[in-house]
Amino acid sequence: MSLQLFDELLGDSRAESLADHLTKKSKVLSSMGLVVPLQGMLGGRYGLALGCIIPLVSFYLIQLRPRKFLPLDPKPAQVKSLEKNEAVEVQPPISARAMSVISIQETPYYIGGKEMSENGYDSVLNPTGCIEFGTSENKLSLDLLQEWLSKWGDNLLDLNEAGGYVDFSGLKSLKSVLARFMGSVMGGRVELEPSQMVLTAGATPTLEILAFSLAQPGEAFLVPSPYYAGFDRDIKWRSQVELIPVPCSSDTDFKLTPDVLESTFRRMSRKGIKIRGVLISNPSNPVGNVLDRAALTSLLAFTQDKKIHLLVDEIYAACTHEEYAFTSITEILDTPKSHYNRSYVHIIYGLSKDLGIAGFRVGVLYSWHKQVLEAASRMARYCAVSTATQQLCTSLLSDEQFMSMFLFENRRRITKRYRKVVAELNKIGIQSKNSMGGLFCWIDLRHVLASPSKDEEMKLWKHLLYKVGLHLTPGTSCWCEEPGWFRLCFATVDNETLMVAFLRFQKFMQNSVY
Amino acid sequence: MSLQLFDELLGDSRAESLADHLTKKSKVLSSMGLVVPLQGMLGGRYGLALGCIIPLVSFYLIQLRPRKFLPLDPKPAQVKSLEKNEAVEVQPPISARAMSVISIQETPYYIGGKEMSENGYDSVLNPTGCIEFGTSENKLSLDLLQEWLSKWGDNLLDLNEAGGYVDFSGLKSLKSVLARFMGSVMGGRVELEPSQMVLTAGATPTLEILAFSLAQPGEAFLVPSPYYAGFDRDIKWRSQVELIPVPCSSDTDFKLTPDVLESTFRRMSRKGIKIRGVLISNPSNPVGNVLDRAALTSLLAFTQDKKIHLLVDEIYAACTHEEYAFTSITEILDTPKSHYNRSYVHIIYGLSKDLGIAGFRVGVLYSWHKQVLEAASRMARYCAVSTATQQLCTSLLSDEQFMSMFLFENRRRITKRYRKVVAELNKIGIQSKNSMGGLFCWIDLRHVLASPSKDEEMKLWKHLLYKVGLHLTPGTSCWCEEPGWFRLCFATVDNETLMVAFLRFQKFMQNSVY
Repeated sequence: MSLQLFDELLGDSRAESLADHLTKKSKVLSSMGLVVPLQGMLGGRYGLALGCIIPLVSFYLIQLRPRKFLPLDPKPAQVKSLEKNEAVEVQPPISARAMSVISIQETPYYIGGKEMSENGYDSVLNPTGCIEFGTSENKLSLDLLQEWLSKWGDNLLDLNEAGGYVDFSGLKSLKSVLARFMGSVMGGRVELEPSQMVLTAGATPTLEILAFSLAQPGEAFLVPSPYYAGFDRDIKWRSQVELIPVPCSSDTDFKLTPDVLESTFRRMSRKGIKIRGVLISNPSNPVGNVLDRAALTSLLAFTQDKKIHLLVDEIYAACTHEEYAFTSITEILDTPKSHYNRSYVHIIYGLSKDLGIAGFRVGVLYSWHKQVLEAASRMARYCAVSTATQQLCTSLLSDEQFMSMFLFENRRRITKRYRKVVAELNKIGIQSKNSMGGLFCWIDLRHVLASPSKDEEMKLWKHLLYKVGLHLTPGTSCWCEEPGWFRLCFATVDNETLMVAFLRFQKFMQNSVY
Repeated sequence: MSLQLFDELLGDSRAESLADHLTKKSKVLSSMGLVVPLQGMLGGRYGLALGCIIPLVSFYLIQLRPRKFLPLDPKPAQVKSLEKNEAVEVQPPISARAMSVISIQETPYYIGGKEMSENGYDSVLNPTGCIEFGTSENKLSLDLLQEWLSKWGDNLLDLNEAGGYVDFSGLKSLKSVLARFMGSVMGGRVELEPSQMVLTAGATPTLEILAFSLAQPGEAFLVPSPYYAGFDRDIKWRSQVELIPVPCSSDTDFKLTPDVLESTFRRMSRKGIKIRGVLISNPSNPVGNVLDRAALTSLLAFTQDKKIHLLVDEIYAACTHEEYAFTSITEILDTPKSHYNRSYVHIIYGLSKDLGIAGFRVGVLYSWHKQVLEAASRMARYCAVSTATQQLCTSLLSDEQFMSMFLFENRRRITKRYRKVVAELNKIGIQSKNSMGGLFCWIDLRHVLASPSKDEEMKLWKHLLYKVGLHLTPGTSCWCEEPGWFRLCFATVDNETLMVAFLRFQKFMQNSVY
């Protein structure tokens, strides 16, 4: 797909980033097709003369070379070098598709991650280090889980089950308690069926499997933007399914408007891009909206009408703030007398956010589509959850009394933390969008930018990262159209670190120079 | 690639199975392009006349239809049905690539697995059920691990680390002890570098990542056969890299002969198939050969000469029988004054076999290729190991005194079990190839077959599965050219079950009718 095409397709500022991305890809591919560099041959006395003649002759010969003899898979320069000097360990080229995965470099995700791993804040060991607000973790209630674990003691593992191979799609025992748990998290008004679940090592492979199963390379999903930056990695990298942002603006509180959805769908379809589905997160990441029945019903009507899939990421279901209720797409599907074709609907869930155990890698695909479930069960061999972890989670989720207390207390702590962060930021002149759920604030630093451009946003982001010591997620990496918004994940740090962060914010805001 | 081409390429009996596989794939794809079935329209009085006219007219119209209006992505019949009756939940088609994954049906792997899950042997609950010899598990030393776990007690997990996101490629602490552990398992004569490791959820995703990174779809690896049936699933399903068997026969004790390797490579290259590497397992699965220095050096010379990769699956490194020493490819690379380009060499390892904890999903990619490691680190997000499991394994492997005892005792038990199984089978007229390592015997039932054909082998295999109650792996599913060989995984059952199995074998062999 040409860059011009994408420019036309998107017809706005988002095209620039997509074009950037594609340019990088094409650069990698074209550099793999370069002829052997001529430097080295050009040294010595006749360097200048040779320097003029050789490129011309080479170019002439290359032009004459019949197309059918051109290699299908162009070899990069270093292979040639290897032939000259076997003793030097010159690394052979990797596949073009793997090259494309590693060529996506220097995004804020990597830069921020690198800075955090090299210079993370520690009150004793590295008090000037960078404070983590860039990763959506929930560390607010780990003490409760740790206490539960210590009581649970050595009843840990049954190696007769955990040692051997089991159904890669997950232990029946865990699916069974998960169905009950998810049912209660999702409002307690629906009943889930364990046989409609496939467990994967985190929600990331669930997303990858859905992309692989619902679309061919080059086909696309529509995603209301700003959207979670990780979707790009999960869906585009290996499955090569495109994500088309459907822009939502601050004017509508970042809510999706049916008109924009419809017009984006039509524009893409006219351009020949096959849209296979709409992907949303609810509660939405990064803006923190919780979708109500009307919004969900509207999305369902749209996708059913177009006969495309609706993928709903409900991984923050139990992270809605105290005063807001969560509505699962399951509940809308269960509406009496509704005639939805449920096989177009797929839910992404996991224990990473609601329980704060991202490292455990427990993801859930919940679907009504038999072939999707079959394909996912087979592909689960590539991303199975450790049985040791599954047994642990089964015990944990089976303790309904504890889980009930945990979910209540966890929501209370999330809400309290959210309110505190918003209030403190307000004091120093930073507003944020009203959030209803999730582990983040969507803060507005537009007034701090020298001018409303992506470049200025990146400049500010880097200043906050390297100079102020605060790691946030810049809005443009979430495909936000309005420069100056940032995601601040507030559940990653303890109260003391939070106070240090506020002081840093305050100091920065006093002159706002970056 | 046409079926004829593959017939030519392979030029022997293996082509049939490859052709079967490809036919299935093409059937799936072509069925997706069918026009709406005409039955239903053909009922009633004028059925016969319409039945003649409609297909002719339709065919004529389809022929006339300009090519550019033909859909790029043909829709299957059920989409049309859905338009007629919205209320019926007709499931929309999944992507062609996912369809291809689920279309690979009814292989012995699935049939056997299904029978085991529905009718597995239990001395009390299901004494006539089927006994598991088809899955390569090691349950011989789980008691030792369970005992270690019980002592370890509630020092289990540090949720501050395990709860949050960590480097998807694995915890540094685990990589560090794994390097030491793998070094000792691999003969204690080499030193491994933790930074050259990427951990994945089992060895399966390690293989997938290597396939994705070293080859484009349609390119191939050569694999000495018979080979582990799972390689097909791990490498072909999603990465679409082909595996070309390099046949080894019983005449040479199933050892790879350099001539056959060379001639297969040349034949494939002549036909335009890009060979990207050679994949071997050492100790070899299913035949149980342990490769010596000479064999490894020869393989290394071949792959370095051709500038292709050498992928060595060393997952059974610590399962060599007592009297045999294991030699890792690392050791050959470390030979003084050798000038190997190590970036062409990649090791697959994991804790599933040597520790008997397949369910824990701990796989290891060890490579000298920086870009492969970088690509793998990124793709590890799709298949990360649970941090809870990583912490557990770190503690386990750090207990060097226990591990040393475990590895010694485990090898002793494997060797003892192997000898017992071979001796008992001998008594009733079943020979097996001399094995040096692994958790399996490669048993010879050629004399039992009515005729030396794949069909007869499958007939015997099904008889053993359904009538005798023994689940083995048929040799042809490992691409063995000589019908009548079976893999028997001997470390999955306890002594009592083993005795029941011998009685069943004995009864069957008394008349050998199937």
